[in-house]
Amino acid sequence: MTIWFASGNHHKKKELSDILSPYSINIKIPSEAGIEFNPEESGTSFLENAMIKAKALYDLVGEPVIADDSGLCVDALEGRPGIHSAYYGGEGLSSIERNALVLSELGDNPNRGACFVCAMVLYYAPNRFFIAQEPLFGNIVKDMESARGSGGFGYDPILYISEYKRTVAELTEEEKNRISHRGRAGIAIGRLLG
Amino acid sequence: MTIWFASGNHHKKKELSDILSPYSINIKIPSEAGIEFNPEESGTSFLENAMIKAKALYDLVGEPVIADDSGLCVDALEGRPGIHSAYYGGEGLSSIERNALVLSELGDNPNRGACFVCAMVLYYAPNRFFIAQEPLFGNIVKDMESARGSGGFGYDPILYISEYKRTVAELTEEEKNRISHRGRAGIAIGRLLG
Repeated sequence: MTIWFASGNHHKKKELSDILSPYSINIKIPSEAGIEFNPEESGTSFLENAMIKAKALYDLVGEPVIADDSGLCVDALEGRPGIHSAYYGGEGLSSIERNALVLSELGDNPNRGACFVCAMVLYYAPNRFFIAQEPLFGNIVKDMESARGSGGFGYDPILYISEYKRTVAELTEEEKNRISHRGRAGIAIGRLLG
Repeated sequence: MTIWFASGNHHKKKELSDILSPYSINIKIPSEAGIEFNPEESGTSFLENAMIKAKALYDLVGEPVIADDSGLCVDALEGRPGIHSAYYGGEGLSSIERNALVLSELGDNPNRGACFVCAMVLYYAPNRFFIAQEPLFGNIVKDMESARGSGGFGYDPILYISEYKRTVAELTEEEKNRISHRGRAGIAIGRLLG
């Protein structure tokens, strides 16, 4: 089965494809079909933004759609960057600059608790949808020298997972897809479809 | 496993218990534990209201919670009664009066299409939840003489399911739980837990 994924991000497409492959689900994104897709993410939660993206693409294609919204929530920053994760500090920043910004805001606060959160929607038909929201709990590293790993993207290098004694960016793809927020949300959706 | 159900309605509790029993899930409601539970359902969708109830009860008990919100959406009435189904026409009306009100608003409009919708939330832990929203499509009967059946509750007697050649209130409990909006949403949640 092939399902639309409401995203323009090829890295995320690859990750979700890997997560859903055990369930025989293939993923295609709007740009591959020449469809322009830039909905305004005006929600106030991951859930609302994922629903906005899912409904917008469903209205365009009229076929089952998966959409997600995710971000990093830092306890001592009252949940920031949260839904603003992708453009925190301004559109022009690089991932490294964004990671440095979070570390600088957190300073030497001993409360390093944080989590990635992913809300994933399968919009299946009118009035019919499934949603899974899953967290991945960890701790923010103490400085940019401790921000390690070349895997993953975004804030992956600054979230340290004690159980694995590594940052998310140091996990193998297989490890990350099994325990991550997006991985676990995708597995719930896959189980419902499979 | 025993899970809280954010409801004060014993009829709904019985229905959800039957739906979830194949997954070895038992249901308890706040009143059985002496907990007062009357959250304001101020959302603008079934999904929002189900989330409000789930979060409110989770905040009280700190254990996994199921909540749902459901209603009847009539195509020719622009989706009414919708989220206002439970008190449509005013708090004081009986189910029969409410059914008569919907039939009178619809008049002899040939477009009888309608559906029950149920949004069900399993709020499992902070930042972790699953949601299934499912519809049950049918047609509104033509008048109160055609409103048949003693099973079910609410608008069940006026939604006719062509495939079964009966109204929802004429279905057996087993049939209803297999095909209904609440039944199918509950089955999705049960499969994720099971």
